[in-house]
Amino acid sequence: MKLNIAILPGDGIGPEVTNQAIKALKAIASEFNHNFKFTTADVGAVAIDKHNDALPEKTLELCKKSDAILFGAIGDPKYDNDPSAKVRPEQGLLKLRKELGLYANIRPVKAYKTLLDKSPLKKHIIQGTDISIYRELTGGIYFGEKHTSEDGDYASDLCGYSREEIERIAHLAFVAAENRSHKVTLVDKANVLETSRLWRRVVKEVAQQYPDVTLDFLFVDNAAMQMILNPKQFDVILTENMFGDIISDEASVIGGSIGLLASASVGDKYAMFEPIHGSYPQAANKGIANPIASILSAAMLLSHFELHNEAELIRLAVEKSLKLNITTPDINSVVNTVTTSNVGDFIEDFI
Amino acid sequence: MKLNIAILPGDGIGPEVTNQAIKALKAIASEFNHNFKFTTADVGAVAIDKHNDALPEKTLELCKKSDAILFGAIGDPKYDNDPSAKVRPEQGLLKLRKELGLYANIRPVKAYKTLLDKSPLKKHIIQGTDISIYRELTGGIYFGEKHTSEDGDYASDLCGYSREEIERIAHLAFVAAENRSHKVTLVDKANVLETSRLWRRVVKEVAQQYPDVTLDFLFVDNAAMQMILNPKQFDVILTENMFGDIISDEASVIGGSIGLLASASVGDKYAMFEPIHGSYPQAANKGIANPIASILSAAMLLSHFELHNEAELIRLAVEKSLKLNITTPDINSVVNTVTTSNVGDFIEDFI
Ligand SMILES: CC(C)[C@H](C(=O)O)[C@@H](O)C(=O)O
Ligand SMILES: CC(C)[C@H](C(=O)O)[C@@H](O)C(=O)O
Repeated sequence: MKLNIAILPGDGIGPEVTNQAIKALKAIASEFNHNFKFTTADVGAVAIDKHNDALPEKTLELCKKSDAILFGAIGDPKYDNDPSAKVRPEQGLLKLRKELGLYANIRPVKAYKTLLDKSPLKKHIIQGTDISIYRELTGGIYFGEKHTSEDGDYASDLCGYSREEIERIAHLAFVAAENRSHKVTLVDKANVLETSRLWRRVVKEVAQQYPDVTLDFLFVDNAAMQMILNPKQFDVILTENMFGDIISDEASVIGGSIGLLASASVGDKYAMFEPIHGSYPQAANKGIANPIASILSAAMLLSHFELHNEAELIRLAVEKSLKLNITTPDINSVVNTVTTSNVGDFIEDFI
Repeated sequence: MKLNIAILPGDGIGPEVTNQAIKALKAIASEFNHNFKFTTADVGAVAIDKHNDALPEKTLELCKKSDAILFGAIGDPKYDNDPSAKVRPEQGLLKLRKELGLYANIRPVKAYKTLLDKSPLKKHIIQGTDISIYRELTGGIYFGEKHTSEDGDYASDLCGYSREEIERIAHLAFVAAENRSHKVTLVDKANVLETSRLWRRVVKEVAQQYPDVTLDFLFVDNAAMQMILNPKQFDVILTENMFGDIISDEASVIGGSIGLLASASVGDKYAMFEPIHGSYPQAANKGIANPIASILSAAMLLSHFELHNEAELIRLAVEKSLKLNITTPDINSVVNTVTTSNVGDFIEDFI
């Protein structure tokens, strides 16, 4: 298969982890005789520094003519504490999601057998956890009208949702559930929010088209608790943008490290693959960043194009590296000398 | 001291747990020679059933002329799945908070020595945790303009904050930190939300008046993760309404049961005390509801009126009941016959 893959390394540890994912993809290409072409472009703080724009037009164009995008990470603390900054790295990511119509962010959460001891949660709580989170990604309070009064003493953000925005991701979630354990949990705050009540109404309607999938509801505060008390109760979680952001980061503790969690952001035309961890600037260029999340994002990319054997081989390689303890310090308490690229090299070689 | 205390038992397990808190307060009154007068009124689903109003005028009046309010719980599933319901139990609670100006919800989170094994989290993670969460309670998306289009296919909720709303709770949080471990963590989403950027700006300004308190910032998604990875890093957490709702419910897993967590909701004129758990209707009238959260809310009530010895005695009684395993099934894996009122009786006798 021929694939044009846009590489957007971004900020902080983004470039180094993305490099390992590219190594894995190159190994797959040579092993399975595919033709993957990689083209790199700037996004985030790096793009602001170079072009004064978090998402330069050239980058967006590249994404639009590529078959898929591999994204690193975004964010730089020098912007976080400067609320008056007119350009911020995150705008690059948000604009990319919006412009490419990537409305569904899919985040698998799994407890790896070999890592059960790494989690802050007890083994019997997490053992066997296998969740797929479907987070709406182009609507809600992220993209609603924003306003600050002239004197700067009042600010607002609007959270809005339309039926269509809810329906399209709901269908994806139910289809996923049909191929998994047949359960969708809608996480919302329907006892307070008008948008949540719309979500409940629309998702109930969609559910009728999937009679073999059970739908249940959980308020987001309760969900944040249940995720830790009993994560095994979940199969597919469906939720809006902001709640999905919080719940999926929280869920990352199950696997023992956020450095393991991959995600796919898909729409009707484009697809982007990225680790859920951020740019983690304190760790940049030290060789301590865990490349697994980025490498597993590459596996999700392959699955997206129905290259299931290829994706499976990457996953096998990852599991092997975990078993052999060829892992970065976040999950390796024994050896402290395995670097980001050591992990990448091992996975490349294994493939 | 003479105190008029309004009792609002509400729905589900609300009445039974509140009864135990009253028993504790009566024991305190007789032991310390105080004069506590209790007057009960309806709120929530119960009030809808009786008066077709989640917060009847009479209830609000009673609250306004009382010195403090002891609240049970609110909510009934028959309303949750009926998004078209015009009256909902939660409106009673929200209106109460707003009308009484209870802008700061204070939720202490502690890992009890005797319960370290009950938490889904590993012992070394939670041991020593002592957090005080300051959640803004009368602003944000809970109270912003709500809208649903005529055809029902679009809905919105507005999240708004003013400088004053942020300043007043920020001062409470910093004063609290001065008497604790001198650290405030502001939880927000300043990389996306305009309101969060206002919070950051205002809280930074307020911080300058408290030079011996350190202020740091955490994005809410990261905070949801850090709360589980390393809860000991937190002292005072300051946050807006919706984020506070999620983070504090999540934090309840540290103690081993949400049935242990009390809260105080305070404003400039009134103060209300309530367990953070909900109405838990499945457990109602079975004698299995944990009354500790309500009893500890009564202790917070006493502290609010500077009755510190009295509050301390209640806390001692609670710790004793935990040590002797006189606890409801949520935290008692050995004996299954201790009921809600058994716990209340023990604490009453101890006092
Ligand atoms: C960087 C930030 C804007 C982003 C988000 O909140 O969506 C990130 O946290 C994520 O989850 O991908
Ligand atoms: C019942 C509900 C409206 C309420 C809230 O969200 O504030 C509850 O969850 C709480 O935290 O007190």
